[in-house]
Amino acid sequence: MPESTPTSDYGTLRPPTRVLMGPGPSDTPPRVLAALGLPTVGHLDPAYLELMNQTAEMLRRLFRTQNRLTMPMSGTGSAGMEAAFVNVLEPGDRALVAINGVFGTRMKDIVERCGCECVTVDVEWGQPVPPDAIQKALSQGPFKVVAVVHAETSTGARSDVEAIGRVVKELGAGALFIVDVVTSLGGIPVEVDAWGIDVCYSGTQKCLSCPPGLSPVTFSDRAAEIIATRKTKVQSWYLDLSMIQQYWGEERTYHHTAPINMTYGLNEALRLVFEEGLENRWERHRRLSEKLRQGLAEIGLSLLGDPEYSLPMLNAIVVPNGVDEADVRKRLLNEYNIEIGAGLGPLKGKIWRIGLMGHTAREQNVVYLVAALREMLRR
Amino acid sequence: MPESTPTSDYGTLRPPTRVLMGPGPSDTPPRVLAALGLPTVGHLDPAYLELMNQTAEMLRRLFRTQNRLTMPMSGTGSAGMEAAFVNVLEPGDRALVAINGVFGTRMKDIVERCGCECVTVDVEWGQPVPPDAIQKALSQGPFKVVAVVHAETSTGARSDVEAIGRVVKELGAGALFIVDVVTSLGGIPVEVDAWGIDVCYSGTQKCLSCPPGLSPVTFSDRAAEIIATRKTKVQSWYLDLSMIQQYWGEERTYHHTAPINMTYGLNEALRLVFEEGLENRWERHRRLSEKLRQGLAEIGLSLLGDPEYSLPMLNAIVVPNGVDEADVRKRLLNEYNIEIGAGLGPLKGKIWRIGLMGHTAREQNVVYLVAALREMLRR
Repeated sequence: MPESTPTSDYGTLRPPTRVLMGPGPSDTPPRVLAALGLPTVGHLDPAYLELMNQTAEMLRRLFRTQNRLTMPMSGTGSAGMEAAFVNVLEPGDRALVAINGVFGTRMKDIVERCGCECVTVDVEWGQPVPPDAIQKALSQGPFKVVAVVHAETSTGARSDVEAIGRVVKELGAGALFIVDVVTSLGGIPVEVDAWGIDVCYSGTQKCLSCPPGLSPVTFSDRAAEIIATRKTKVQSWYLDLSMIQQYWGEERTYHHTAPINMTYGLNEALRLVFEEGLENRWERHRRLSEKLRQGLAEIGLSLLGDPEYSLPMLNAIVVPNGVDEADVRKRLLNEYNIEIGAGLGPLKGKIWRIGLMGHTAREQNVVYLVAALREMLRR
Repeated sequence: MPESTPTSDYGTLRPPTRVLMGPGPSDTPPRVLAALGLPTVGHLDPAYLELMNQTAEMLRRLFRTQNRLTMPMSGTGSAGMEAAFVNVLEPGDRALVAINGVFGTRMKDIVERCGCECVTVDVEWGQPVPPDAIQKALSQGPFKVVAVVHAETSTGARSDVEAIGRVVKELGAGALFIVDVVTSLGGIPVEVDAWGIDVCYSGTQKCLSCPPGLSPVTFSDRAAEIIATRKTKVQSWYLDLSMIQQYWGEERTYHHTAPINMTYGLNEALRLVFEEGLENRWERHRRLSEKLRQGLAEIGLSLLGDPEYSLPMLNAIVVPNGVDEADVRKRLLNEYNIEIGAGLGPLKGKIWRIGLMGHTAREQNVVYLVAALREMLRR
């Protein structure tokens, strides 16, 4: 067939309408979907530059920081993770990374790709990172960075970043404190300045309920100074903040063409956060997670790990003996249009991961999921 | 103010409606805007996996290739450029890069960040890369890669990639041929297999008229083999195709959360390409560029460089003596809602860059821009 023949062989794009109760993405609210479809403008349009300023201002408020260097990176949360490390590490530097799930493992991988030595604090998957384990490991310092995951999306465990931050400040000999808040930001308290976090990154598709594609990041002035005085270039051109900050700053120097419509979506998602009130949003996540757990307990399903350190927005639920966990997920999707997540690594086949993130965290979804599971598990 | 106080201080998101006749992004057609706002599904949803397969199939058809390793990277065109180099280069490798504008310069920067030696063929900005200059430079080989930009967005020059491909094949001693088709893909012929291109990348926001945010890439089997037999890990975790291809392949192994809604947009943009017919689309770009140039000639404006090597989708127009080029751009934007681009580097202040890319390339826009310039320049 010559290419000049017009064809509509590809049908019509009609994705199903799901209830996204997995580890992310969460449901995108109508206003954010509408924002994504607003007319595209240029990346140097004065209207877009104003939108960038406003978005950065809202991100500072969300991260609870005064950091100048605060913006969304043009990639998903993993791009934010890579940006966090490649901008501050140089070959030969040493990093201390806590691993209690998939994302700590990923941090280690990135550190090593930077030509750096990675010392790890290994914690059983499903458990939080104990501050005293970090304290002990710091004796193997000095380290350029200390990194932990606030909310381990692979297991549902919350680590006490505030307490770890105190340890790093007291005993870290100036190490930068890097924290992954991909799953926590917007759902539970994240206090960048108060907790002494130097580098923090998130994703848009969890508790912010904007589709995946951007990664909000923030760097302290101390981290920014380290970037400014590097001896080597950042190994990633695309994620090099020494250049990108000139586009977000007064200079407006073109680096790469910004993802305009995704930024509309993030901007609208942030408006929704502040229209609700950040603390109200935390409370909503807490309340609905409690309701979910009560409902699941009534049908004989229980939470993995210590409730005190479990995430409200990502509930790791133990698969009962004799239940085919993959079949349950498949039937939930096909018969009820509900997506939930599987366990990963050592928890594969042992847990379901039930997300209540952002717009997904609504009464109706909790009631619906519990009812669906009740129906299925008694069959 | 406590954060629990809901606030709507940020007003309403209302970007202006522009006519995007700059170097990209181009105007997004209504069907693509609508696709961006379709309900988000999960990145492992069977419906999404099917969409991925279909999108990859359409990209192969667009690139004119049989390459298995063909997909959109989760970042803008510059992420695609970085992916092209970091996946095939290892420290100590040598690269030959032709520089006739901004994007060749960027290639060199990335090559050097890979710890590689970069030999350059330097060409006057605005001119195409002469195949015999590549031929001559190959005597300084061997090179692991030879890289050129097909359509230099900074100058409007088109290089003869087919002829350069022949030279690389004959005299390149097995070097991989990397070609940047960010601005050309979908607007003029790009023949990945027929021209012997091993690694090719593009962006979504030019002649495909999907907003910026994704970068279609394709790697030949020979390039894929080089990735599979690397001695070192790819320095970018986020762009590491040895892992990403397991998500796009049969394994469906999670790497990062895919940018779901942006992929809807790209998918819809590709449907539009094939409903029109790829060759019809090339002809439309050619015809409207001719109309634009005729219209501009009538008001005394002329093209920079040799028309034979000038891009139909990006017209470099010489700023007449005595005209304040920045003021013209500003007034076009403010009074007519038309965006055009400025010159860069040595061409700063000397040219305007007028884009006719994808959905922007319509009669009405050509007529409107010429009329607006006529009105302004006679004042």
